[in-house]
Amino acid sequence: MIDENKLLENVFKPVYLDLNDNVLVWLDVSKIPWEEVWHRSRDIERIAKAIENLEIRGAPAIGVAAALSLAVVALNSNAKNSQDLVKELEKASQRLSKTRPTAVNLFWALNRVMNKVRDALIKNSDLEKIKRIILEEALTIQREDLEANIMIGRYGSQLIENGDSILTHCNTGSLATSGFGTALGVIRYAWLQGKRIRVIATETRPLLQGSRLTIWELVRDRIPVKLISDNMVGYVMSKGLVNKVIVGADRILRTGHVANKIGTYSIAILASHHKIPFYVAAPTSTIDLNTTIDKVIIEERSADEVRTVLGRLYITVRDVEVYNPAFDITPPELVSAIITEKGIIKPPYEENIRKLFVNSLK
Amino acid sequence: MIDENKLLENVFKPVYLDLNDNVLVWLDVSKIPWEEVWHRSRDIERIAKAIENLEIRGAPAIGVAAALSLAVVALNSNAKNSQDLVKELEKASQRLSKTRPTAVNLFWALNRVMNKVRDALIKNSDLEKIKRIILEEALTIQREDLEANIMIGRYGSQLIENGDSILTHCNTGSLATSGFGTALGVIRYAWLQGKRIRVIATETRPLLQGSRLTIWELVRDRIPVKLISDNMVGYVMSKGLVNKVIVGADRILRTGHVANKIGTYSIAILASHHKIPFYVAAPTSTIDLNTTIDKVIIEERSADEVRTVLGRLYITVRDVEVYNPAFDITPPELVSAIITEKGIIKPPYEENIRKLFVNSLK
Repeated sequence: MIDENKLLENVFKPVYLDLNDNVLVWLDVSKIPWEEVWHRSRDIERIAKAIENLEIRGAPAIGVAAALSLAVVALNSNAKNSQDLVKELEKASQRLSKTRPTAVNLFWALNRVMNKVRDALIKNSDLEKIKRIILEEALTIQREDLEANIMIGRYGSQLIENGDSILTHCNTGSLATSGFGTALGVIRYAWLQGKRIRVIATETRPLLQGSRLTIWELVRDRIPVKLISDNMVGYVMSKGLVNKVIVGADRILRTGHVANKIGTYSIAILASHHKIPFYVAAPTSTIDLNTTIDKVIIEERSADEVRTVLGRLYITVRDVEVYNPAFDITPPELVSAIITEKGIIKPPYEENIRKLFVNSLK
Repeated sequence: MIDENKLLENVFKPVYLDLNDNVLVWLDVSKIPWEEVWHRSRDIERIAKAIENLEIRGAPAIGVAAALSLAVVALNSNAKNSQDLVKELEKASQRLSKTRPTAVNLFWALNRVMNKVRDALIKNSDLEKIKRIILEEALTIQREDLEANIMIGRYGSQLIENGDSILTHCNTGSLATSGFGTALGVIRYAWLQGKRIRVIATETRPLLQGSRLTIWELVRDRIPVKLISDNMVGYVMSKGLVNKVIVGADRILRTGHVANKIGTYSIAILASHHKIPFYVAAPTSTIDLNTTIDKVIIEERSADEVRTVLGRLYITVRDVEVYNPAFDITPPELVSAIITEKGIIKPPYEENIRKLFVNSLK
């Protein structure tokens, strides 16, 4: 049995609030695996840039960072009354919401804090009370995300058996969340249970979150892992070197469509072709009941991400045109199950996602 | 109509014999797109290293280089009699055959020259005559490969229509062959015919032959091209941005199994999933009637190719384990047609490959 309270305490947090200084503190994930640089800031523009430049990345980590940032604004505000504070918060929220268009957790976290603020305003709460409400809500979002990850790990580990070789894509670990991870949380939980598992991690071009971050995390945890380039997925599957796939999600639609890091869709097709289960692990905050598939905006990032390796080395003719979609969408028929903190969702997704939400409201 | 004789004359040759100096001359393809460095050598060890280090690469280019290298040995030999010359040639042939285990063209070219040598020896040909025979045979192999590529282009272009968007993998162009290219030769021929086509090229990790070489060639020829990373293939197919795939081959078995650059198999599955035709373009010298699928050796290359980008930048934890297969095998059921210099082969491959060989012997 795993002591989950101890786990919650000791887990590595890539972004947190320092209440001595009232600043946001974050590990600059864009510098891993070369350096471990921590930043501290109370400047929203600086924090927004950190999200845009992928110093803070991964849908859940971005959500937590955004919520904590609103707390930073509140704690450092010189506003003389509640209305002025709310204006400051709305400005900050606006700026943060423009950083990454695809990550639903970002909007979800900002809205959750701002709704609390507006409630408090309606109730004529005083300035200090509003500040306290924001801080509490932000810390709750962080703690809930951590707890959710550990629950995702617990549920997901039911699908993992001794001897499994698990392929994962991108980074869904401590460095992408409030801590512990989603897909990597499942792997971590199964490993902590003593299951003998191995991992194959795709490097995940163009930004190499797999080779840089997932490998860094798994090597640190001494979980056996092999790195492959993205185009080796079919090969390792055909050789029987993989028997499960687990990935994260940036957004899951009510229909079970999964928006996730570019390459996820290809892996899902390859898994289906080889009859290998393909699991998605994500907190329910990733599930977007409102947006329909035709309305999902796929973020197109800078051409130089593909023309270079991390801006450090040009690997092609300088001005060649590129496609650089950051995400793709995997249709529900390719997804074997969705692992959430509330349980494992199986097909048919439209029906079972609805059921999960209805039950959790009871 | 394309003037093929003029094309043959003017085509860019990445490896050739300089008969003023009796040296092999080659473009160091490992330095493209950064520098255009040409090497000249008569030292077999140096030439073998050039093949091992991918200064010369692509199955047909390696075959041509190997044949021309035997001519270099003969032209520079101080042997006093035919037997001594043949010993020198056999030693050179042995060394060259150890450079790349998967490329069948290499063995084919070496054997073709060595068989001529042995014939001449049986006929008691004198030293000078044997040297002349070797030179002629090597130059014939080069010219035949060039002509074959142009024929592949001519046949393959029948499959290409105005408005096509063609996805290709790795490099199969001038920089991989004696000139013009195989899969890229088809694209080039269709373009020279005036067909309005566009190309999507995968970067092809780990050695980036797509972003470095294919893009360099297509931009130079002003053929419209967009670069993607390998994990974007499923995405561009799902968006309808691709309607044909053409790749090369390192070895084609009698059953129609295609050994080619790692990633080819994944692309073939993705093409099949999206009902996009998947074509393989290769000279018949690539077809290996003898080896069965269980006997094909998949070359595993150095771990640092995956841990780094071209040895220039570490992108992961230094000692992490990797898989680094250089090739994969695409089964015949995923191949829509094989384009050769003798015509287009359609399924069933076992039957139609045999027919092609029987007919071409008539």
